Amino acid sequence: MQFQPLLHLFEVKGFFMSEMYIVEQSITFESGVRLDSGRILAPITLVYETYGKLNALKNNAILVEHAWTGDAHLAGKRNESETKLGWWDAIVGPGRLLDTDHYFVICANVIGSCFGSTGPASINPKTGKRFNLTFPVVTIRDMVRAQKLLIESLGIERLLTVMGGSMGGMQALEWATQYPDSISSAIILATTPRPSPQAISLNAVARWAIFNDPTWRKGEYKHNPKDGLALARGIGHITFLSDESMNAKFGRRFSARDGKFDFFGQFEVERYLNYNGYNFVDRFDANSFLYLAKALDLYDVAWGYESMAEAFNNVTAPLQFFAFSSDWLYPPYQTEEMVTCLTETGKSVEYHLITSAYGHDAFLLEHETFTPMVQKFLAQVSGTENA
Amino acid sequence: MQFQPLLHLFEVKGFFMSEMYIVEQSITFESGVRLDSGRILAPITLVYETYGKLNALKNNAILVEHAWTGDAHLAGKRNESETKLGWWDAIVGPGRLLDTDHYFVICANVIGSCFGSTGPASINPKTGKRFNLTFPVVTIRDMVRAQKLLIESLGIERLLTVMGGSMGGMQALEWATQYPDSISSAIILATTPRPSPQAISLNAVARWAIFNDPTWRKGEYKHNPKDGLALARGIGHITFLSDESMNAKFGRRFSARDGKFDFFGQFEVERYLNYNGYNFVDRFDANSFLYLAKALDLYDVAWGYESMAEAFNNVTAPLQFFAFSSDWLYPPYQTEEMVTCLTETGKSVEYHLITSAYGHDAFLLEHETFTPMVQKFLAQVSGTENA
Repeated sequence: MQFQPLLHLFEVKGFFMSEMYIVEQSITFESGVRLDSGRILAPITLVYETYGKLNALKNNAILVEHAWTGDAHLAGKRNESETKLGWWDAIVGPGRLLDTDHYFVICANVIGSCFGSTGPASINPKTGKRFNLTFPVVTIRDMVRAQKLLIESLGIERLLTVMGGSMGGMQALEWATQYPDSISSAIILATTPRPSPQAISLNAVARWAIFNDPTWRKGEYKHNPKDGLALARGIGHITFLSDESMNAKFGRRFSARDGKFDFFGQFEVERYLNYNGYNFVDRFDANSFLYLAKALDLYDVAWGYESMAEAFNNVTAPLQFFAFSSDWLYPPYQTEEMVTCLTETGKSVEYHLITSAYGHDAFLLEHETFTPMVQKFLAQVSGTENA
Repeated sequence: MQFQPLLHLFEVKGFFMSEMYIVEQSITFESGVRLDSGRILAPITLVYETYGKLNALKNNAILVEHAWTGDAHLAGKRNESETKLGWWDAIVGPGRLLDTDHYFVICANVIGSCFGSTGPASINPKTGKRFNLTFPVVTIRDMVRAQKLLIESLGIERLLTVMGGSMGGMQALEWATQYPDSISSAIILATTPRPSPQAISLNAVARWAIFNDPTWRKGEYKHNPKDGLALARGIGHITFLSDESMNAKFGRRFSARDGKFDFFGQFEVERYLNYNGYNFVDRFDANSFLYLAKALDLYDVAWGYESMAEAFNNVTAPLQFFAFSSDWLYPPYQTEEMVTCLTETGKSVEYHLITSAYGHDAFLLEHETFTPMVQKFLAQVSGTENA
């Protein structure tokens, strides 16, 4: 088992988080985990990054969970040549919402993904070849099982909070229900207790787009099946935006070079989906996309329980929920179902419905809408709020 | 120019509409039409069916407009072996909403389609080969241009009403704005003055699915590109249903033979999309699908005008609108924009928002929700209402 030093931030220019280089770390658990399916996945490697310092009491750790196509690179840069900051840089750093002067922030790439953690593109040690479709189906609960090993390896008994949106929110829910003693709170954004058949159907056609690509070859490709994966991602983008945000961003404008009466003429929104779809091919493995889509669709907080209420019975930590008015992928009513259930069983729960035009993506694009509430909630759970 | 007799219903069993055989008719206009694009499409053949008898005054004619993948076969059977009735049989026949004891009902397959009217699969008389992608881009307005020739050829100066849902509603809008003197009323269901970028984006990914299919060959296929077309249709089905109707119909159930941890395991909703997608391949031409998708996306009632208000300036006929609460493809607010605009300019307009869980398909599935209002409206416009 590899273990790497906790202190891994070294200041380069010295102004703020984004100007330091972050070291990507990696840890391997030889005994792996027993998955929900009953299969053993071993060994398991997790790639992760940390920000700030774990204090002596080890009670200032925050685990941030990434969404579908996210990675461990939460904030800052890993080297000078990186042009993009980490995916949630806006809220992580000194003086930011997850203030790295106070908190020790961790983000790990989930199993099933393709950014260093064990996934279908990893080499199966038993065969010396990529897993591809021999990789087992993993669930959100399995992802959290693996993360629990990481947190333990870091010597952390209890996380101050687990925070995530979308698939990240599902993981936070699993921490709250499966490891209630290991968290002091959870912050859960833009998620669902279980995707609706409409959400499933949109992932289903995305999967289908990849299956249709003859270069996918049932997962045994040398190069990503680009047309299928790009289309799958294009479909995803529709669900991340909203009717309103698409209207504001694209309206019914045509792509500059195309005319109305050109058979291949594109609307701006069409060009956007195309462009983003093909960009995605360079950065995400098609099989990982499929495995994670399946994990999303299978997700049900009440899996293995008689009911949602029974699943929530275990919860001890205060939970803070955010839903976004124009999110039609995981609409607010689905979060509200959980909030009602938790309230009825006497749990500590806080809920904010944010009015936003940005659809599902709002949790990434409009952090200022929830920053004050999260700040207050974190102060409360860390007991540092001014009395 | 072909011309066929108006009387074409012959009773077989003699009870009701559905037990008579309908004769599909066809008419060819050698001079064709000048399209919105400026191109001439000639000759044009229209396949159509009629039900009931045109009266001596020729003022009892109702034109019903079909939607995207519909056809001229509105009601009844065309022969004994047909197992399915026409697509809107529920409302057409003696004693039904469009009572064929009183009205002369016409339905024509639109140009661009593949059920006998001129479309991309037709033989281009200049080359002796299928048009395929040499077929010109046609608009909703072009479809109505062709229908105007048909109506004239039937000796009808003024239609009692034009009725249609979805793409059929767009055609009814075009009659109201482009041929105000040729209609006495219009009944417009589940449509939009212009599809939103969200609606466009869903058609865009459907198009993309066909473009990705290597057997499509830029339209030069011998056999329908089945995987691409099936997926495109699957995407369409998502937009025809609603979150609520999918929940009621499928929930999160798995397809019987598939397990949760099977990589290729399917949810019921996934199986449904697949099944309907592949069924569609046998009955609809992929190029027609693309041309009509484009016509839908391009549709804008205000095309060629300064504003919607200016487009509606021409309207003289009373218009009756229906929108369905769970229709997220062409949501009620889009119909309401037209109703508000018409009301503000002093036009005769009636609007009903129907509460329904069935999404966009509600106009086809729940005719009983609008039947009484349409009945009353028709009685008013035909001047037969009891005073």
